[in-house]
Amino acid sequence: MNPILAVGSVAFDTIINPFGEANRIVGGSATYFSIAASFFTDVRLVAVVGEDFADRGDQLFGGRRVDLAGLQTVPGETFRWKGEYGFDLNNRETIYTKLNVFEQFHPAIPEAYRSSPIVFLGNIHPQLQLEVLDQVSAPRLVAADTMNLWIETTHDELREVLKRVDVLIINDSEARELSHEANLVKAARAIKAMGPKTVVIKRGEHGVLMTRADDGEFFAAPAMPLEEVFDPTGAGDTFAGGFVGSLAACSQVNDAAMARAIIYGSTLASFAVEDFGLDRLLTLTQDEIRDRFGCFKRLTHFEID
Amino acid sequence: MNPILAVGSVAFDTIINPFGEANRIVGGSATYFSIAASFFTDVRLVAVVGEDFADRGDQLFGGRRVDLAGLQTVPGETFRWKGEYGFDLNNRETIYTKLNVFEQFHPAIPEAYRSSPIVFLGNIHPQLQLEVLDQVSAPRLVAADTMNLWIETTHDELREVLKRVDVLIINDSEARELSHEANLVKAARAIKAMGPKTVVIKRGEHGVLMTRADDGEFFAAPAMPLEEVFDPTGAGDTFAGGFVGSLAACSQVNDAAMARAIIYGSTLASFAVEDFGLDRLLTLTQDEIRDRFGCFKRLTHFEID
Repeated sequence: MNPILAVGSVAFDTIINPFGEANRIVGGSATYFSIAASFFTDVRLVAVVGEDFADRGDQLFGGRRVDLAGLQTVPGETFRWKGEYGFDLNNRETIYTKLNVFEQFHPAIPEAYRSSPIVFLGNIHPQLQLEVLDQVSAPRLVAADTMNLWIETTHDELREVLKRVDVLIINDSEARELSHEANLVKAARAIKAMGPKTVVIKRGEHGVLMTRADDGEFFAAPAMPLEEVFDPTGAGDTFAGGFVGSLAACSQVNDAAMARAIIYGSTLASFAVEDFGLDRLLTLTQDEIRDRFGCFKRLTHFEID
Repeated sequence: MNPILAVGSVAFDTIINPFGEANRIVGGSATYFSIAASFFTDVRLVAVVGEDFADRGDQLFGGRRVDLAGLQTVPGETFRWKGEYGFDLNNRETIYTKLNVFEQFHPAIPEAYRSSPIVFLGNIHPQLQLEVLDQVSAPRLVAADTMNLWIETTHDELREVLKRVDVLIINDSEARELSHEANLVKAARAIKAMGPKTVVIKRGEHGVLMTRADDGEFFAAPAMPLEEVFDPTGAGDTFAGGFVGSLAACSQVNDAAMARAIIYGSTLASFAVEDFGLDRLLTLTQDEIRDRFGCFKRLTHFEID
């Protein structure tokens, strides 16, 4: 079992959608990632919160396989985000983003975490992602996320990060923007040429496309067909948590393990969207994960005649 | 081996896209369907052409498993369609549709075809689809296609057709329009309640979603990730041909056979888009089909750990 060092944001989110409003709930990329990954392995969370976070960390992560020694509390307010979804849950409007204590954040990796075999770099400034990589010693696997903001404003630093990661997890529009290729196959290959051995492209309700190492081809998975999608907030980070968590639990990371990891990521994400914010993940059980993984197999498998 | 009775349009198409122009090439839903299905079984084509079609039927279908006894030639011009694609090949503009001889078409099913075990009703007026069903005797499987025009203008006749078909093949926007459900899972279930035992929803580059009989759940397949898509004209009809053709070649139509049929349909469609119109299908071989079917398996398969 390989613990994961996860660095990213912990936040207070306010989410409005046609079904209701969730006010000042705990969110942030590292939060979703850590809770999802903790179903598979131990997670060492490095992030920053303000004094207003109080004991929310213990409430949320207590009893889970998430170590909080790297969760810094500093004077000031926790990162806050407010967003609103219309009936088309694929599009959301950000009402505000207040970085607060995150503005001055520099990840300080506790000594005991520096030899973590698996590192996940959440969607933070590429310079901070590089600072994390400079503090760790020879991890077996480094996975990273990024976003359009960094592609547009910190392109050179991002390219440095890409040279040092094994897996880039990115959504389809970001992949197109980063590669200047409209076609996703070309986009994935262009990004792979920038450094990552594996490129995972998240396509929301259309599933996931991943480059494969052994033959230069692809692995593709549909999203679980869901009758109700309640709140997509954090679905991408939850996918990353299930994906990296599942890989961490493998003795060997080969194409078969990567394909399974895509399905575990998709499984966790399919639960996350069923309720506001983290709510569904907080009641999720190992049995439910196993059952839905089996649903994915029935959803996609066929035999050659 | 079960022959398929296929009724639909045969046309002259003019296609303009950013890569060039194909002028007055043979197209039409029944043409694409028949050539794709003929890789699996015998096809009995029922359609109408004008005198300008001359010997194009023999040129195109000669040497293939397509029987032309039901291809009527009548005075006048063949159905013509002209369309233009932009760089985003997902959207096309119809420049004109000239029904010509198709305007007076009523399908006359040759006596020898009336006991065909498999019937495919191409995307034609629902009243004509009903006329076909009234002429055949107890087929084992009836599959049908339709389009937004018929959903909007001939709703009642279409609902009659739906009560009498086993499989409806439809694209995602049409499924939403027919069911008044934005969510595809709800749309598929609503359409199933209108009659078809199986609903197949084509999602273009996002693959296919199909209802399953045994457990009320779904089968989903991604589209083959392609680096170049040249011309999507006829891809949906080619999918239907591969799908129904593969089912016709099965001794038993169960969920496993349906899942394989979705992959055969996707395989044929992935070839069709590689060149203008029918061109790629005309050079396609059984070996190429088998190889790409194998690619689909590697694309989608994973093992439970």
